[in-house]
Amino acid sequence: MASTWQAIAKRKKQEQWSRIPAEYRLQSDFKKDPVNVLDVPRTCGLLSAIELDITESYDATSLADAIRARKLSAVQVTTAFCKRAAIAHQLTNCLTQIFFDRALARANELDAYLTKHKKPLGPFHGIPISLKDGFKIAGLDATIGYVGLAFKPASINSPLVNLLLAAGAVLYCKTNIPQTLSALDSHNNLFGRVLNPSNLALTAGGSSGGEGALIAMRGSVLGVGTDVGGSIRIPAFCNGVYGIKPSAGRVPFAGQETGKALGSDKVALQASAGPLAGSLRDCELLLRVVADMQAWKYDVDVVFGDWRSQGECPPKKEMVVGVVRRDGVIDPLPPVHKILDDTVRALKAEGIKVVEMDISSLFSQCQSLANALMGVEGGNSGFDIMESTGEPLSPWLQSRMKRKAPLTLEQTRDLHGKKAKLCEQFLEIWTQANGTAIDAIICPVAPHPVPPIDAWNGVSYTSTFVLLDYPAGYLPVRKLQHSDLEGSLPQSKPIGSWDQRNREIWTGTDHSTFLGSSLGVQVVVPRLQERRLCQAMAVIEDSIRRQGIGEQSGPKL
Amino acid sequence: MASTWQAIAKRKKQEQWSRIPAEYRLQSDFKKDPVNVLDVPRTCGLLSAIELDITESYDATSLADAIRARKLSAVQVTTAFCKRAAIAHQLTNCLTQIFFDRALARANELDAYLTKHKKPLGPFHGIPISLKDGFKIAGLDATIGYVGLAFKPASINSPLVNLLLAAGAVLYCKTNIPQTLSALDSHNNLFGRVLNPSNLALTAGGSSGGEGALIAMRGSVLGVGTDVGGSIRIPAFCNGVYGIKPSAGRVPFAGQETGKALGSDKVALQASAGPLAGSLRDCELLLRVVADMQAWKYDVDVVFGDWRSQGECPPKKEMVVGVVRRDGVIDPLPPVHKILDDTVRALKAEGIKVVEMDISSLFSQCQSLANALMGVEGGNSGFDIMESTGEPLSPWLQSRMKRKAPLTLEQTRDLHGKKAKLCEQFLEIWTQANGTAIDAIICPVAPHPVPPIDAWNGVSYTSTFVLLDYPAGYLPVRKLQHSDLEGSLPQSKPIGSWDQRNREIWTGTDHSTFLGSSLGVQVVVPRLQERRLCQAMAVIEDSIRRQGIGEQSGPKL
Repeated sequence: MASTWQAIAKRKKQEQWSRIPAEYRLQSDFKKDPVNVLDVPRTCGLLSAIELDITESYDATSLADAIRARKLSAVQVTTAFCKRAAIAHQLTNCLTQIFFDRALARANELDAYLTKHKKPLGPFHGIPISLKDGFKIAGLDATIGYVGLAFKPASINSPLVNLLLAAGAVLYCKTNIPQTLSALDSHNNLFGRVLNPSNLALTAGGSSGGEGALIAMRGSVLGVGTDVGGSIRIPAFCNGVYGIKPSAGRVPFAGQETGKALGSDKVALQASAGPLAGSLRDCELLLRVVADMQAWKYDVDVVFGDWRSQGECPPKKEMVVGVVRRDGVIDPLPPVHKILDDTVRALKAEGIKVVEMDISSLFSQCQSLANALMGVEGGNSGFDIMESTGEPLSPWLQSRMKRKAPLTLEQTRDLHGKKAKLCEQFLEIWTQANGTAIDAIICPVAPHPVPPIDAWNGVSYTSTFVLLDYPAGYLPVRKLQHSDLEGSLPQSKPIGSWDQRNREIWTGTDHSTFLGSSLGVQVVVPRLQERRLCQAMAVIEDSIRRQGIGEQSGPKL
Repeated sequence: MASTWQAIAKRKKQEQWSRIPAEYRLQSDFKKDPVNVLDVPRTCGLLSAIELDITESYDATSLADAIRARKLSAVQVTTAFCKRAAIAHQLTNCLTQIFFDRALARANELDAYLTKHKKPLGPFHGIPISLKDGFKIAGLDATIGYVGLAFKPASINSPLVNLLLAAGAVLYCKTNIPQTLSALDSHNNLFGRVLNPSNLALTAGGSSGGEGALIAMRGSVLGVGTDVGGSIRIPAFCNGVYGIKPSAGRVPFAGQETGKALGSDKVALQASAGPLAGSLRDCELLLRVVADMQAWKYDVDVVFGDWRSQGECPPKKEMVVGVVRRDGVIDPLPPVHKILDDTVRALKAEGIKVVEMDISSLFSQCQSLANALMGVEGGNSGFDIMESTGEPLSPWLQSRMKRKAPLTLEQTRDLHGKKAKLCEQFLEIWTQANGTAIDAIICPVAPHPVPPIDAWNGVSYTSTFVLLDYPAGYLPVRKLQHSDLEGSLPQSKPIGSWDQRNREIWTGTDHSTFLGSSLGVQVVVPRLQERRLCQAMAVIEDSIRRQGIGEQSGPKL
């Protein structure tokens, strides 16, 4: 049995390698920096000057403009990103399915379309978009890293794929994930582990880890991940890119391979799909295009409502930002306090009203409830798939996952009842502080800086907003610097085992490892108000940049 | 034990009677028509001329205008509706909780508010609104007809109650329902049976039967019911009033007494709350005010989005109406075919494009799936409540309901999976007929005319649109007349047992019993597009009236 899964995995990796054209391959004796590989695409010599320009000087928004204006062709843009994605993959193992041939054929068609019709096919005309592996594309595998699902190509596209194609996008690769999708580091037995390109010793995060690494490498300008515990925001953080988890029912999630039976998401916690990108406005672009393409006509779970109907944030001078510093389960480590302090200082300096919020009595109830709701079925369908080939659990999962009896319907119902009660109690936080209405909340995305491989601790800061179904985004503020390492742990006893483990990340890691990793904040708004979130994030980012914290956001690397 | 429940029920009815002021009571020797009691409020002498005018010459929309313009006071309006509701109740048994005292105190406050502030408290300033019994009002029972829940007053208001009060409404009564809420005729052991005021031999429908009867009597100008199988549309039909079931997540449903544990609706089929009223524009008013009061701030299940973001129907001359004539489970009886024919003829005469749609291959799969999803928990919590006092099942339920083991989580998940698949397949019907986009569908609300008491057969025509979560409304077209009785049953064999029972309604009832009952159509649009539904219903109603079918809609009786 053991040889079976290894043989399948070997064949799959061979197939994958065969999909990378010879001229996109790094020299076998290529010497790279042992820590940071972000610069390789620029130095390896595979990309032409124009390809470097395409992949470094634009974001998706400006690329779409350039293609519409016929300054760039879809084929030029697609070729550049295929090449750069191939390079990124060779350095970080970020891809699963590679289909550059299809992408170039598609780009050719789009160029012909534009010539013939004098107008683009849709708002994404010619834009290469990368997708997390679970999305199905007819004729290609969607294995989500299970050996047992390899060489079983999908027969039809997922709804989001149909929408993106109708909007003119070019699909060219799918990205790597953890086995079971339930880990925060992206390793599986079929494709191996995703590495963090800015620091190979740190985690690339998960479960949309391949997306995070690929976008950091600028092998993709815009990608779509999924998030049920933090799986968009965590890899966005680890790789220093932007990521937004919308409420469920915004970006078509249906028709993906999840390793579970149809209907599973309806009785458990509902995951959502959302963008990861190199600029905030590209995250917004994805959400806006999906809404204005009438995504509800593609996926029945999508809520009716165009982009304009997804909320609004007041202008900067009237805006009130709430600051949540801790969740009552895991206290943040010094750099996390520091980046929140810096952000608050910038907001105040820009005249934005900031309200300190202590919601830990509610917040602390969320992680365990979210975990329980994620696991109502016991995860056994994943074990069934693994046992079909005999593949073992990924190392990190081995001590954390085992077959469990599914809950009864009554137990599941009671968890949903608890969730409803908590959601109701959370309604009040938006009118916190003597009735001051909060426009957006900022809080940590994690209680620690980007940790070493397989060392992520707890998802309370992200899974809570899945439980509450609040739109939440990661805003990269700046890189971790020496002064962020100055603080020390509190003298008090740890809150509990999660807090204890978090302190061990601090005491057990050479602090210099953290230098240069991404620091930022999570921004959160009430349910189904994705436009309000994007507007709030834009105001916060603008304030940070105006105050000289971090680099100006934008397409330049 | 038996004496216990009867004693409680007796005490409850006594309490209820004590809440009707002596001057609102009909003479004990009052002679009424043995069939139709609609005229009693006008002839019994309890209402003054101005009170008759208030209750008959206005709808909620024009009443709100009159109160704002100070032509009428809130106290005048409230008094008139309290009196008329009391009369309606004495004739049809349509009420459960009666709290005219609170209502008049509230109306007084509202009048003082308007005098002081020169502007209304909200869009419903001074409008009496009736609520189905399940909505909780602090200090009052919400028994939903279970003897075991009597004399256990609610401690807090349901979210919808808070919203309506914030909008300026006057609450004054709650309305009668069937035991378990799972019957289509409204009978329970605590309050007895609701009667149909236009024909005491026919059913008043359920489960919002009290609302239907009260509004038909004009004892309420606007009420809120709930619907998980047809419980708004069926009593609207039976009583010849307008009723709209929105998608779930539009009108706050949370915090009601359902006889079930919190979280039950999340694992089963999600019910929704919606309006019943004497005019279409009042149904729209309720939906609009709820949306524009930002209902999502009251109930976490409500989807973000104001009224303008709830869809749009094209103007009449561009509109395409799909006609669905049968569901493939129960073939409609002759009067149902006739009213659909008449409606289609009127639409065509008005220049509206009509497309015949045969969707029975999908439609026929819905009823059993909806039933299965409604019953995942086995209904045992209701039996627990009944057994706490020993009350028996209502007669109609006795052969239809028994304790069942709840499904397993896997079985429940698979039902949700089937639902997801069906919903996906249904997406295509909106581009039926070679790509012609359908703006709204008309179809029967039931396969039979308003049937005798306890004779309702099947809910396939209504529960399907709960399964699909489509907004659906009942549009009363006209009264059943002699010519509607001319058709005959098909010669073919019945489709199945439901169809067989439907034919027995036709063969087993003296057809003259049906004369004068309401006939109409159900109008349906895609999910979460309530504004589109109201606009479509308005165009269809306008076409019908312009073609001389039925009476002009409007506030006049």
